[in-house]
Amino acid sequence: MEKLKSEKYAIGIDIGGTTTKFGIVNTKGEILEQDRIPSNEHDAVENFIEDLYQKLHPMINKVGGIINFVGIGVGAPNGNIYTGTIDYAPNLKWKGIIPIANILEQKFNLKTKLTNDANAAAMGEMQYGACKNMKHFITITLGTGVGSGIVIDGKIVVGHDGFAGELGHTVIRPGGRMHKSTGMAGSLEAYASATGVRETAIEFLTKHPEEPSLLRKYTINELTSETVYECAIKGDNIANNIFQFTGQILGESLANFVMFSSPEAIVLFGGLTKAGNLLLNPTKKHMELNLLPIFQNKVKLIFSELQESDAAILGASALVWE
Amino acid sequence: MEKLKSEKYAIGIDIGGTTTKFGIVNTKGEILEQDRIPSNEHDAVENFIEDLYQKLHPMINKVGGIINFVGIGVGAPNGNIYTGTIDYAPNLKWKGIIPIANILEQKFNLKTKLTNDANAAAMGEMQYGACKNMKHFITITLGTGVGSGIVIDGKIVVGHDGFAGELGHTVIRPGGRMHKSTGMAGSLEAYASATGVRETAIEFLTKHPEEPSLLRKYTINELTSETVYECAIKGDNIANNIFQFTGQILGESLANFVMFSSPEAIVLFGGLTKAGNLLLNPTKKHMELNLLPIFQNKVKLIFSELQESDAAILGASALVWE
Repeated sequence: MEKLKSEKYAIGIDIGGTTTKFGIVNTKGEILEQDRIPSNEHDAVENFIEDLYQKLHPMINKVGGIINFVGIGVGAPNGNIYTGTIDYAPNLKWKGIIPIANILEQKFNLKTKLTNDANAAAMGEMQYGACKNMKHFITITLGTGVGSGIVIDGKIVVGHDGFAGELGHTVIRPGGRMHKSTGMAGSLEAYASATGVRETAIEFLTKHPEEPSLLRKYTINELTSETVYECAIKGDNIANNIFQFTGQILGESLANFVMFSSPEAIVLFGGLTKAGNLLLNPTKKHMELNLLPIFQNKVKLIFSELQESDAAILGASALVWE
Repeated sequence: MEKLKSEKYAIGIDIGGTTTKFGIVNTKGEILEQDRIPSNEHDAVENFIEDLYQKLHPMINKVGGIINFVGIGVGAPNGNIYTGTIDYAPNLKWKGIIPIANILEQKFNLKTKLTNDANAAAMGEMQYGACKNMKHFITITLGTGVGSGIVIDGKIVVGHDGFAGELGHTVIRPGGRMHKSTGMAGSLEAYASATGVRETAIEFLTKHPEEPSLLRKYTINELTSETVYECAIKGDNIANNIFQFTGQILGESLANFVMFSSPEAIVLFGGLTKAGNLLLNPTKKHMELNLLPIFQNKVKLIFSELQESDAAILGASALVWE
């Protein structure tokens, strides 16, 4: 009994475009229980919450019941920390403004905090990951898109309206590549995402039709950031140039971010970081090249230490301990 | 006696590349006394401080003596709030690291706070100007160069090392115009400063040698942001295009800044703002064009309400009340 009383828990929920991951987390950042449900199979958000409740209820009881829980943290696309609502998330089925924090509070009778998924990742780094003792850092998630979480003075930057930190949509090549879903030209996400790497591959292969490349044996559907990586480590020239190019654009963007908030570190995260030094080296080089001398050789450019599968849940749960 | 006791004062000192302005400021933001000395006529910083002291001493006595003063606030290029030192300021005569806050504290026996000149301007806006009730805003000083001060949650963003907020040096045209003193290509300052406007004028006039323009009657030395403005309001096509171009680049940069920190307002300041709507309209247009929908038509783009001649002193003094 004494033991159960001293241990406190949080529920972390990460609502992704396809899958919602959730789990029970203790203060040490250990995930004791976890599971997932599809995000987009429920027409009404209430049915989605009901499913979530049915899965979470036995987990909660396993660690001694709701009395041991401090709250629920939720990361979701377009999640607004001020209002607790998901606002017009393009990748979710529920349209308009969804008061998800309120609905969860009523269902679970637990204080619920919401933020966007990228900010949740930054919370996770600060609470459990590479940035445990840092007060100024930026996390950049290089996945299908490019997400970001900015921490200044130990707090996530949410801005005037709760929507700050959309660094993936900053423009780094004015008039450049068109971003298919935003319609913006030359934004970071159009280049430094898995989608962007694939587009760069198609561009480079069609621009130099004579140059031999291992990438040519793949069908257009098979051209992904993973196949580009596989060809690059085999020494393929075009594949390596793709990472050089991606790293250059990412590095230039990071330099701009550093001159904004002068962070101690930038933490890279997400699928694209599997490319390791192939991506890190050109990124670091072009970041340093574009910094004023007072910022050079100061900023740590590192990969996340969190397991990707756990990070989303941990990040969301970190909101509870704040 | 009672009256003197209740009124408190701050000393505001703005160290510029050419002139150092200073004054006595009350809590209402009124400058009661002010004067100036040259910044670069003293080989040793101690002699500069001695001169400053000789000028300030009678002013201090005029309002009842040092007992009525809360402190000294200083704005200076490369001024670091953490260390109280001016670090390698390229435009000042004193080289290396100058412990200016310490020297002033000892000389005046008053608590002294230092920050860079652009951050001081932001402090002034928050304390006395257009941003009195705002917690999230950015000030951009469009002068010979481009300075910036970023406020998040009511605090100036200084970052991990005290140097944050160098938005003038962020790159907005990769591979673009070379910045003469930093050697960086395509930074905001290379375009959206008085120097940048002059360079754009020379570029446009030489690129279209056949196109008539009022600007052609000026010698190359007379081509300044002021003469471009004078020709623009007379309807000159090239002069108007120069402001369109400058505003486009500034607007694109501002969009990137908005997606970083989601401010309530951006306050423009400095000599170039005399161009009024000639600059504001294209800036606003291109800022909005480059924002994600969630940020559109939200950010107030305004000019500073502070008198330029007073703003530097007010901004520096605002550090004292913080």
